[in-house]
Amino acid sequence: MKATVYNGNQSFTVIEKEIDTPKSGEVRIKVAYSGVCGTDVHIYHGMMDKRVSIPQTIGHEMSGVIDEVGPDVEGFTEGEKVVVRPLDDRLVKPSDKGFNHICENLKFIGIDSPGSMQQYWNVPAFVLHKLRPETDLKLAALIEPLSVAVHDVRMSGLVAGETSVVLGGGPIGLLVAMVAKEAGANVIISEVNETRIQMAGEFGLKAVNPTKIDLVQYVREQTEGRLADVVFEVAGVQPALDVMTELAGIRGRIVMVAIHGQKKPVDLFKFFWKELKLIGARVYEKEDYEKAIALITANELPFEKMITDVQPLSNIQQVFENIDKNPEGLKVLMDCQL
Amino acid sequence: MKATVYNGNQSFTVIEKEIDTPKSGEVRIKVAYSGVCGTDVHIYHGMMDKRVSIPQTIGHEMSGVIDEVGPDVEGFTEGEKVVVRPLDDRLVKPSDKGFNHICENLKFIGIDSPGSMQQYWNVPAFVLHKLRPETDLKLAALIEPLSVAVHDVRMSGLVAGETSVVLGGGPIGLLVAMVAKEAGANVIISEVNETRIQMAGEFGLKAVNPTKIDLVQYVREQTEGRLADVVFEVAGVQPALDVMTELAGIRGRIVMVAIHGQKKPVDLFKFFWKELKLIGARVYEKEDYEKAIALITANELPFEKMITDVQPLSNIQQVFENIDKNPEGLKVLMDCQL
Ligand SMILES: NC(=O)c1ccc[n+]([C@@H]2O[C@H](COP(=O)([O-])OP(=O)(O)OC[C@H]3O[C@@H](n4cnc5c(N)ncnc54)[C@H](O)[C@@H]3O)[C@@H](O)[C@H]2O)c1
Ligand SMILES: NC(=O)c1ccc[n+]([C@@H]2O[C@H](COP(=O)([O-])OP(=O)(O)OC[C@H]3O[C@@H](n4cnc5c(N)ncnc54)[C@H](O)[C@@H]3O)[C@@H](O)[C@H]2O)c1
Ligand SMILES: [Zn+2]
Ligand SMILES: [Zn+2]
Repeated sequence: MKATVYNGNQSFTVIEKEIDTPKSGEVRIKVAYSGVCGTDVHIYHGMMDKRVSIPQTIGHEMSGVIDEVGPDVEGFTEGEKVVVRPLDDRLVKPSDKGFNHICENLKFIGIDSPGSMQQYWNVPAFVLHKLRPETDLKLAALIEPLSVAVHDVRMSGLVAGETSVVLGGGPIGLLVAMVAKEAGANVIISEVNETRIQMAGEFGLKAVNPTKIDLVQYVREQTEGRLADVVFEVAGVQPALDVMTELAGIRGRIVMVAIHGQKKPVDLFKFFWKELKLIGARVYEKEDYEKAIALITANELPFEKMITDVQPLSNIQQVFENIDKNPEGLKVLMDCQL
Repeated sequence: MKATVYNGNQSFTVIEKEIDTPKSGEVRIKVAYSGVCGTDVHIYHGMMDKRVSIPQTIGHEMSGVIDEVGPDVEGFTEGEKVVVRPLDDRLVKPSDKGFNHICENLKFIGIDSPGSMQQYWNVPAFVLHKLRPETDLKLAALIEPLSVAVHDVRMSGLVAGETSVVLGGGPIGLLVAMVAKEAGANVIISEVNETRIQMAGEFGLKAVNPTKIDLVQYVREQTEGRLADVVFEVAGVQPALDVMTELAGIRGRIVMVAIHGQKKPVDLFKFFWKELKLIGARVYEKEDYEKAIALITANELPFEKMITDVQPLSNIQQVFENIDKNPEGLKVLMDCQL
């Protein structure tokens, strides 16, 4: 079989190796597509060399077909289409209070253990979610990031008729916007990159450039002064933190999706004054995966347009190099059988 | 009648004036006690001269008896004991979404309009809450700050059996701790002032000094690693902001009670990582006043010990000067008939 490994230092290699037999509790997946995530790009740039065991196969956004069911696994059959929810929560403790998806000793499969950027992949059966036979496996590779968006919207408590501002129109922000719109919200994306603003427009989403218009004034006008009921911070930059507390109306909720590596200045006075809520949101729970699977199965949102490129897995080095050259592309998939 | 006025520049004067007849919709209260709040001390220090119309009577923590019922007021009778919920929400708009207590054009009575530090006080009837005839009017002057605490605990969603850390053992922090404990929580106060730590102990509350022990480690040990379910930030200082995100366990809630005038560094990564919630909390709603009134009526918490001094209203200048000299005192009341 073909596998790819990250070797550190912005380098991947494609190797040939034996197909592993699934161990007890495991299932072998014939991987169809593996998407490249911002985290994978971080790994490629050497930012996560402490968590990755070089040389290691990475990747966690995928779709595939069950190729072999290992011993002691029930309920799965060869040939079934599946996706992996890449959270290994086997070290969960009582102090995690049942929030397994963010348990203190969580291992993220594809970062802390081998990932999907290979032809065949053995995973514990408990991470699998089944797809319908008719599901498009390219679209299914979007289920992982879509589940992030579903989780974010669920955590926000968004209800139909509310106004939501999504700060950042990258892959995650666009998916959050789609899910929020599907939930009946009036959604405004704030994005500084004109190419991405145009893409959002092609997806039927409203996107504005906060360096060209007064975003707060715009949202005030759109809402008869109510401002935003929900703000999603999916940009990860200080200007987004500065504007989020301005954009949220009385008792507004701000969902922190972006990952801020350092402490950042926040307007806590506005939290007090308007009784705002800040809601941290990380990955997804089982129910978010099921909702994302239902959305992909229904295929009524512009998911196909999110996939800006599909490349053979053997081109992995070039794929990552191109992402650096073309940071506007949304989602690149790798065909793991090629 | 006797009234006091703040003249700016750390100066109060006591004046004699005519007793005003209540206008339509108003009630005249014979003020029994007026408590001094941190905000009153801020006003005294000239920090709020933009909001106060000098010379102005200030004060908003009070108890009293109805002295005269004005025209067009129903449901109130002379002689009834009352407290004022000092929120004038007459300029509420649809964009306030029904959150009248924090409406954009809220006027805070006693800051934005004349307050209770006088012998008789005319207020619109809609701000009144009735007390039982047997209620102690000294304790009743604590209802306003107690309502803040009741609101904070309600906003936190605290349930019995949870562990709560209160950062700051000032008057508001102590009341929050009492209300949280009464709700069945395991409460730990963090306070740097040894006199206040001792006072908390006398109130039957657990208080520790974070400059002498490792607070996070202490809370971890007390909770078998769960850490705090709820953290109340009632200190208003950067060390409290730094520790709040450490203290909160997975999906912990942090209630922002303190008023931070400037943007401050916050560990947003921890919000993401542990899915924390930050909940801004400001003043109180009607139901918080009713709960606070019930607590004061029952008088089963150490409210009496909170009142560290009672002075005649005529001593107002000295009262404020003494508060500056003795910042450890908790609640000073002024007897508004003396
Ligand atoms: N919470 C989670 O579990 C989770 C999961 C996946 C990703 N993330 C995080 O979500 C964030 C977004 O992920 P992504 O893959 O979409 O990243 P991305 O970098 O592709 O998208 C961010 C977008 O924000 C835009 N932006 C920059 N400055 C802006 C500004 N001032 N106003 C508005 N937009 C601005 C950028 O142009 C970019 O399009 C990242 O921080 C990522 O780490 C979190
Ligand atoms: N949200 C609201 O509606 C509302 C209402 C009233 C007051 N407040 C605010 O609540 C806060 C507390 O009010 P207060 O009257 O009790 O004030 P206070 O200043 O008397 O109390 C703050 C306490 O924090 C302690 N402290 C200082 N540094 C500390 C640290 N590192 N760790 C732990 N404790 C520390 C101080 O010693 C002090 O006892 C203020 O910021 C006030 O403005 C908010
Ligand atoms: Zn990802
Ligand atoms: Zn007050």
